[in-house]
Amino acid sequence: MCRWLAYSGSPVRIEELLYRPKHSLIVQSLHSDLGAETTNGDGFGVGWYGTGDTPGLFRSVEPAWNDANLRELAAHVDSPLAFAHIRASSGSPVQQTNCHPFRHGRRLWMHNGVIREFPRVKRDLVLAVDPSLYPEIIGSTDSEVFFFLALTFGLEDDPPAAVERAVGLIEEVGTAHGVAHPIQMTVATTDGASIWGFRYSSEGSSRSLFYSTSVATLREQHPEVAVLQELSDESRLVVSEPLGDLAGAWNEVPESSYGVIQEGQDELRPFAPKVPSRGVAITRSG
Amino acid sequence: MCRWLAYSGSPVRIEELLYRPKHSLIVQSLHSDLGAETTNGDGFGVGWYGTGDTPGLFRSVEPAWNDANLRELAAHVDSPLAFAHIRASSGSPVQQTNCHPFRHGRRLWMHNGVIREFPRVKRDLVLAVDPSLYPEIIGSTDSEVFFFLALTFGLEDDPPAAVERAVGLIEEVGTAHGVAHPIQMTVATTDGASIWGFRYSSEGSSRSLFYSTSVATLREQHPEVAVLQELSDESRLVVSEPLGDLAGAWNEVPESSYGVIQEGQDELRPFAPKVPSRGVAITRSG
Amino acid sequence: MCRWLAYSGSPVRIEELLYRPKHSLIVQSLHSDLGAETTNGDGFGVGWYGTGDTPGLFRSVEPAWNDANLRELAAHVDSPLAFAHIRASSGSPVQQTNCHPFRHGRRLWMHNGVIREFPRVKRDLVLAVDPSLYPEIIGSTDSEVFFFLALTFGLEDDPPAAVERAVGLIEEVGTAHGVAHPIQMTVATTDGASIWGFRYSSEGSSRSLFYSTSVATLREQHPEVAVLQELSDESRLVVSEPLGDLAGAWNEVPESSYGVIQEGQDELRPFAPKVPSRGVAITRSG
Amino acid sequence: MCRWLAYSGSPVRIEELLYRPKHSLIVQSLHSDLGAETTNGDGFGVGWYGTGDTPGLFRSVEPAWNDANLRELAAHVDSPLAFAHIRASSGSPVQQTNCHPFRHGRRLWMHNGVIREFPRVKRDLVLAVDPSLYPEIIGSTDSEVFFFLALTFGLEDDPPAAVERAVGLIEEVGTAHGVAHPIQMTVATTDGASIWGFRYSSEGSSRSLFYSTSVATLREQHPEVAVLQELSDESRLVVSEPLGDLAGAWNEVPESSYGVIQEGQDELRPFAPKVPSRGVAITRSG
Repeated sequence: MCRWLAYSGSPVRIEELLYRPKHSLIVQSLHSDLGAETTNGDGFGVGWYGTGDTPGLFRSVEPAWNDANLRELAAHVDSPLAFAHIRASSGSPVQQTNCHPFRHGRRLWMHNGVIREFPRVKRDLVLAVDPSLYPEIIGSTDSEVFFFLALTFGLEDDPPAAVERAVGLIEEVGTAHGVAHPIQMTVATTDGASIWGFRYSSEGSSRSLFYSTSVATLREQHPEVAVLQELSDESRLVVSEPLGDLAGAWNEVPESSYGVIQEGQDELRPFAPKVPSRGVAITRSG
Repeated sequence: MCRWLAYSGSPVRIEELLYRPKHSLIVQSLHSDLGAETTNGDGFGVGWYGTGDTPGLFRSVEPAWNDANLRELAAHVDSPLAFAHIRASSGSPVQQTNCHPFRHGRRLWMHNGVIREFPRVKRDLVLAVDPSLYPEIIGSTDSEVFFFLALTFGLEDDPPAAVERAVGLIEEVGTAHGVAHPIQMTVATTDGASIWGFRYSSEGSSRSLFYSTSVATLREQHPEVAVLQELSDESRLVVSEPLGDLAGAWNEVPESSYGVIQEGQDELRPFAPKVPSRGVAITRSG
Repeated sequence: MCRWLAYSGSPVRIEELLYRPKHSLIVQSLHSDLGAETTNGDGFGVGWYGTGDTPGLFRSVEPAWNDANLRELAAHVDSPLAFAHIRASSGSPVQQTNCHPFRHGRRLWMHNGVIREFPRVKRDLVLAVDPSLYPEIIGSTDSEVFFFLALTFGLEDDPPAAVERAVGLIEEVGTAHGVAHPIQMTVATTDGASIWGFRYSSEGSSRSLFYSTSVATLREQHPEVAVLQELSDESRLVVSEPLGDLAGAWNEVPESSYGVIQEGQDELRPFAPKVPSRGVAITRSG
Repeated sequence: MCRWLAYSGSPVRIEELLYRPKHSLIVQSLHSDLGAETTNGDGFGVGWYGTGDTPGLFRSVEPAWNDANLRELAAHVDSPLAFAHIRASSGSPVQQTNCHPFRHGRRLWMHNGVIREFPRVKRDLVLAVDPSLYPEIIGSTDSEVFFFLALTFGLEDDPPAAVERAVGLIEEVGTAHGVAHPIQMTVATTDGASIWGFRYSSEGSSRSLFYSTSVATLREQHPEVAVLQELSDESRLVVSEPLGDLAGAWNEVPESSYGVIQEGQDELRPFAPKVPSRGVAITRSG
């Protein structure tokens, strides 16, 4: 599986997010404490908003811990909203087009987890992608197909509803093919303004997901931590694994729920897959 | 498009095929005289038979002319049957899974040309691939989908018939989507014993394809060329572009035809696409 | 050899420099008209000033024309001073540490040309590098050693004098080893404020070098060219090959001279190598 | 640091060495039990003897565990003598020219360990390399300089004496620069017939090194292990970490000693650095 982080708040130098924290994503790429795999060396990606109409994407198949270009980019770009992802392949090839985050227009998407027995269900899932979106699928991962299913079901209008329908479809197709627990996931997606973070798995035992406590609270508790002084009160991190030991800094997102980091009050709500109303075509195996 | 060569005959060091000839494939990767593009620097691949049950594959996204590992492999491996391909991308990403040759069991496949307006027809073509083969498609090129269509239509039993049906389907789907000249191709495929080389295009003006004259004849005409003395009478090269100036050494494969390099007498026959008997599902666009 | 450009002026999106012009550097990487090699596919690099204390560096061994990360970076970063370089290796390995520009503190350096018979003279040249700078040499090219010689001779204080001494040393060492024409070069270097561009060769027949005419003049002559309207009067390009056909837009830098793009009046002056005052140690060959 | 293996014996498919053992080198690249670093993902290399005058080299900067070309090569090449190495960089760039094994003519060399404070001592060490060999140094690691020092001191005539002198020089130069424990090493080198394996460190606490017990003994003890039945009695493995749990299969090479795998009786002898007779030039720091 993988590790990821999503940041929203005061513009920060990307290296502050990726390299500085004690348990930074780069450190996790070599030694993850909570991940299903301890090494996440099968490529990485960063997506950031700033200059330009769409978010920038930097994705590479080198291990993140030694990538000179990632270090340069991170040291020379500021952003108020950034995604970062390190990959441990669950089977599909290590290539740039399989690295997260995935992008469609102004949207980014990243996933930690797996669509189980993907080779068996892939054809039926791909067929459910809107034909007008189909040509944009250029990689070979479960995560990218998942993204295009969510887009098919309205990710640009109502992200939680779209993800619930996409997961509903994945579970229906998986079940039809005899897959026990079709999906395991944490997902982050954004339109460049809000961030939605989902935690769910068919078996009810999902990959970890945390969000940072309010910066104002943290700043009060930890006057000694310099970087906190520079961040606005609205700044938030959502991560698959805490980046530091700061007591009281990290809250776990509960099972089967999603959070929204947005202007105004953030939200935390229950997540429940929905079978899409139109029927699903299932290929008979064997 | 691309450049390729196929060799069958006495076991030769692969570097004799790739680096030694005056207009070798490596030289062509920098400056092709006959190709649609003059530079073919978007990856390459070599497939060879020898040790092991299946052919070996070495594919890389670096330009072939500077790849140290290709030089090493070529200098240390002998083979009686080898394919080599240099790529100039017609749009799909430069990644290892998009490099030719493609492999299925003991079969290799490589293609120079294009399925025109592939993004528009890809979904219908992919749907026509046998569902049991579908999960093996791991790249994103037209050439790989073409290979899996040929496999679907019986490439392992009757290569010319299978390729004629695959091309028939591609032309039918293309025409249904309003594509003027759906396919342009030279293709080489092998089972490790015989080599089939196809030359065809919907518009009747196909990429170049040449095969070498019999070694016995060449040896008589050119006693001064050392390497010819070492090759058996049965040795043959099929190439998208001649590798040298040897007068009388290269014959062009005629339009809409295919050749077979095989034990016994080689053959040259007409090629005509056939619409597969079962109907084709067409996605309505717009 | 290579192709390069240096830009100074109004902050521009880097893609405007790299991809938009008719004969852009990316186009030149596939088909250079004036270069010693027609293909420059052995790596590339971009250095830019903006966010951060030192310039950012993005260097890669993929051909520039197909590098997705270069496209992303160029589309999402603005800079008032940028260097870009595409490489055609003259022998040393294609690896990131051999890609230009090279960096030391806030300085960038790039070179088109060659130190002739570099393997024969390399040891003596490397020995002349200041021991405190020596550990920073991490690649294996002539161009990087040339940079460190210039640093040794005072590049940070007086760039023209330092380059003249470095070239003087290279010619002295080359001559001592019996090399006919020890150096061929165009060089660009910058401290983040001014740009120095040098054109010289031992044989008096140097690689081409051009600088753009004043934007004010161009704007008057070409009211139809949109991008000119947005650039400040001070904006300048120095290039190894003109990027477009705009009549009157490009002036050739004369043989054995250098130009300075700087605040206030730009300058064009003669360049003459100087043998460094301290003696040079020469290894006796054979 | 790194992990490595050296094999000599009956020709084996390389994948039998790299992928099949329970604690294979590929498994160690993700999770090493005994290494100084647990992940060795900074490039790898394989050197093998067989076809061709010199050994073949395949080196890559991708992590070994996911490299498709390594899998292909390993599955299609047999060799009676092979070296393999996985790298965890101790600072120098991750690039092909820094991957082990290194080659000179028919010689291979690989190293696990470090020349301490290499940036401080590198210049003096490089100066001690024979000027005729100097141009062959194309990477930037301590290990390659160590190889060229050994070549300078006669590696091609008397490997143990040459390595003892090279280590003597490294310790002398290190001490002159105030480096506490100048070298930590296990080294393997071969001429294509014999293999020499060294274990030494200035502090007397060296990286682990093991050699396999005689195949005849192993075969008797373990009739159930299939691959042992196919190997000749002379077959031997030297490894930085045991590849399996076979009781009695692995002997540790003692501190400050070296072994020779050769035709006839293998040997195990003490290793003691010797200061080269000619004086060493030391750069005064500061």
